[in-house]
Amino acid sequence: MTDTESSLRGPLQHLESQLLNQQGDIEAWFRRQWLQTPAPFYASVDLRNAGYKLAPVDTNLFPAGFNNLAPEFEPLCIQALQSAVDRICPTARSLMVIPENHTRNRFYLENVARLVELMRKAGFDVRIGSLMPDLKTATDIELDSGRPLRLEPIVRQGNKLGVEGFSPCGLILNNDLSSGQPDILAGVEQPIMPPPTLGWDHRTKSEHFTVYSQVAGEFAESVGIDRWLIDPLFRNCGQINFMKREGEECLASNVEMLLASIRQKYDEYGISDEPYVVIKSDAGTYGMGIMTARSPDDVTSLNRKQRTKMSSGKEGRDVTGAIIQEGVYTREQWGAQQASAESVLYMIDRFVVGGFYRVHTGRNTTDSLNAPGMEFHPLPFADGASRPDPQLDPDAGPNRFHAYGVVARLALVAAAREIAQSGTDDE
Amino acid sequence: MTDTESSLRGPLQHLESQLLNQQGDIEAWFRRQWLQTPAPFYASVDLRNAGYKLAPVDTNLFPAGFNNLAPEFEPLCIQALQSAVDRICPTARSLMVIPENHTRNRFYLENVARLVELMRKAGFDVRIGSLMPDLKTATDIELDSGRPLRLEPIVRQGNKLGVEGFSPCGLILNNDLSSGQPDILAGVEQPIMPPPTLGWDHRTKSEHFTVYSQVAGEFAESVGIDRWLIDPLFRNCGQINFMKREGEECLASNVEMLLASIRQKYDEYGISDEPYVVIKSDAGTYGMGIMTARSPDDVTSLNRKQRTKMSSGKEGRDVTGAIIQEGVYTREQWGAQQASAESVLYMIDRFVVGGFYRVHTGRNTTDSLNAPGMEFHPLPFADGASRPDPQLDPDAGPNRFHAYGVVARLALVAAAREIAQSGTDDE
Repeated sequence: MTDTESSLRGPLQHLESQLLNQQGDIEAWFRRQWLQTPAPFYASVDLRNAGYKLAPVDTNLFPAGFNNLAPEFEPLCIQALQSAVDRICPTARSLMVIPENHTRNRFYLENVARLVELMRKAGFDVRIGSLMPDLKTATDIELDSGRPLRLEPIVRQGNKLGVEGFSPCGLILNNDLSSGQPDILAGVEQPIMPPPTLGWDHRTKSEHFTVYSQVAGEFAESVGIDRWLIDPLFRNCGQINFMKREGEECLASNVEMLLASIRQKYDEYGISDEPYVVIKSDAGTYGMGIMTARSPDDVTSLNRKQRTKMSSGKEGRDVTGAIIQEGVYTREQWGAQQASAESVLYMIDRFVVGGFYRVHTGRNTTDSLNAPGMEFHPLPFADGASRPDPQLDPDAGPNRFHAYGVVARLALVAAAREIAQSGTDDE
Repeated sequence: MTDTESSLRGPLQHLESQLLNQQGDIEAWFRRQWLQTPAPFYASVDLRNAGYKLAPVDTNLFPAGFNNLAPEFEPLCIQALQSAVDRICPTARSLMVIPENHTRNRFYLENVARLVELMRKAGFDVRIGSLMPDLKTATDIELDSGRPLRLEPIVRQGNKLGVEGFSPCGLILNNDLSSGQPDILAGVEQPIMPPPTLGWDHRTKSEHFTVYSQVAGEFAESVGIDRWLIDPLFRNCGQINFMKREGEECLASNVEMLLASIRQKYDEYGISDEPYVVIKSDAGTYGMGIMTARSPDDVTSLNRKQRTKMSSGKEGRDVTGAIIQEGVYTREQWGAQQASAESVLYMIDRFVVGGFYRVHTGRNTTDSLNAPGMEFHPLPFADGASRPDPQLDPDAGPNRFHAYGVVARLALVAAAREIAQSGTDDE
C-alpha cells in the first residue's frame, strides 16, 4: 500500500538501516541536544518521502490537527504532556490555551477541543482564552465530535492573563500570531509556551531551515550519512511582491541555482526524477501562497490570477519574503486510488506522540498536499505495536516510523535552537 | 472473556465510574504526590479484581517480567525510561543493571535481556554487572528469544562500581537483595535505583501495606469512595517459625480477627463470598511460603510438609515475619478454559507502561497464581488503543485499564513514601 518503487528505495533503505542500527547512539545524541536546548512544548512536522530521501518540509510550532491523531496515541500524548508541563508549572495545575481566531473552521475547533481533552486527561485544569476582540462572554460551541468547547474572553489583571474566575499557572499558545503580537500578551508574567517570539510575525521558514540544516549536518556526521538524504536544499529571497513583480529576478535566479544543485545530487545518486522547487511565503501560511517551479520561467510567466494567489497569505497578509525549497517527491500512496500522501508527525516535549497521513486525491507526487480537499488517515505503518525491530526489513512499517520519528525530531531540535536564540534576542 | 458475574459488579462499576469521572482530579492528585515523593525507578503491582473490590496484593520494586509485556507497550516504556533516567543521570548515558543471581532461570534472564534492550533503545549504554561470586569473566548466555545477554563480574574501584572498561553513571538494581546487602554495594557513590535499602532484607510487606493503607485512605477521601474497595485489610505477626510452631498463636488469633473484619465488610455490601486470608512471608518471596486460610484451624493443623513449604523462602531464607492479608477473590478469567487470572501492571517512573495477565489453569479464584505452572498473556482490555472513555460502560476494557492503572499507581505512591522514609532512616 505504501510501497515506493523498489528501484528508488536503495538510499532510503540505507538511511533506515543506519538509523536502526544506531538507535541507542541516536537517542543519546538527542538527549544531549535536549540538555543544551529544551524541546518546544509541542510541534508538528510535515515529512516527504521520495524513496531516496526523507525530509521535513514544514515545522509547525503551533500545531493544529490533534483531532486527527488515532486514539492509540493517547497514552503517549498524556505521558508527554505530563512531562512537558512539569517543566513549566511543577506545582500548579491550571493552564489556559490560547487558540487561533478561526471560529468558523470546524476542523480547527475540533483540534482545540481534542488538545484540551488530552490536557484534562493528563490532570490539568484547562480553560480556553480567546483573543477574538468580538468575544465578550463565554461561548459554548457545539462540535460534530460531541466534545465540549467553551471559548472565553481573555481577562488581564496586572501582568497576569486568565479568564473570569481563573488565573492559570501557564499559557499554551495554539495561535501562530500571523497577524502580529497582540498587545494583551506583552509583558505577561506567566510562562507562555511556545514563546510568542516564535510566532510567524517573528519567525521565518528560511531561518528554521538554516538551523535545521546545521542540525541535520551535525546529525548526519555523527551517524555517517550524506546529510542531503534528510535535508532539503533551499535558498531565499527578501522582499517579494508578486503583484508588483518586485523581487522577481532574485526569485528566478535562485530557482535556477537551486534546480542546478538538486540536479547535481540527483546525478550523484543516479536519480531520474525531474528536479523541482517549491516557493512559499517565508512566514507561515495555511497552504496559501505556495507554488512549484521546474524552471525560472515558471516564476516569470505567472498570470494575474497566480500572482494574486501567491500574494494572499493567511489573514490577508502580503507575502514579503519567500523561501525556495528543494521539492521532495512524495512516493507514499494511500488507499485503492493510490492518492499522494505525506506524513505529519506530532511531538510533545521531546517525544514523538503520533502522526497521520495527509492525503490528497487531486494532487500528484510533486504538489503540496496541504490544500483544500486534503484528508487525514492513520499512518499505515504506525499502529499501536510500532517499534523499531532490527530483525525486520529496514523499510518495514515499524522501522519506517522510527526513521520518520528521528527526522521529525531533528526538526524539533532546530525549533528548540530557534527558541533559545529568540530568547536571547528578545528578552 | 473477562467478564465477572454481573451480580458482583455493582460496587466495582461504581468505583470505575468514580475514577473515570474524576480523571483530571486524580491525575492532579498524583502530580502532587510525585512532587512530595518522587516515584521509584520502576515497579510492578499484582492486582486482584473480585468484581466488588480491586486491590493490589503485592508490589515489587525490582520487577522481573519485562519480557512478558506486549510489544505495543514499547513506546511507553522507552518514553518513561528516558524520563526516569533524566532524574538520575541527566548528562551521562551509561548505566549498569545489577540482576538477580538466578542464572538457571531462563524466564528471569529473558526479563533482564528485555529490560536491557529497552534501556538501549531509550539511548543508554547498558552493561550487566553480576553479583555472582563465581562469575569470573564476561559470559554470554544464549536465550530462546535470540536477545543478546552478557553477564560481567562487577569491578569496584574506590567507591565506584562498574565492569571492566566501563564506569557507569548510575546503577539499576534488579535484585531484591533477599539474601542481604552485598558488601560491594556499601558506600557506593553512584546513584543506585531503587535504593538498596528497599531490598527485602530491609523492607517488609506489612510496612508497605501500612503505607499503602494511608495512601488509599487519602485517595479514597479525595475521590469520595470507601477505601476498602481498593485497600486489602491485613494484620501481621513478628517472629514466626513454622517448623518449631513458634508464633502460631499470634497467627491463629490474627487470622480469626481478620476474617471477622472481612466478614463485616462482606455483610455491609451483601457479598456472599466466604472470607479467606492469605499468609505470606513478610519479606519477599518468589511465590513460596504462601498459604490461604478460611479459619484459624487452617494454621494450627498444618502437617509437616506444609510447614516445610511455609519455611522455605527464596534462597533458603527462613520465614521470620508473616503478613496475614485479606484474600481478594480473582474473578478475571482467561481463555476457553476460564483459567483464573490476575493482572500485573508495570510502571517506570510515575507512568503505567504496560501489564499482562498472570494465568494459572490449575488454580482457583482464591489461590495465589504466582506459582509454578503460571502463564503470562496480554491483558485483553489493554490493547494499543486503550484509553479511558467516559462514553463507554465504566467496566469496558479501556476504562477498566484506567482503573487498574490508578490503583497500581496508589501502590507506587506507597513505595515512593517507603523510599523517602528509608532515605531518612538509613542515610
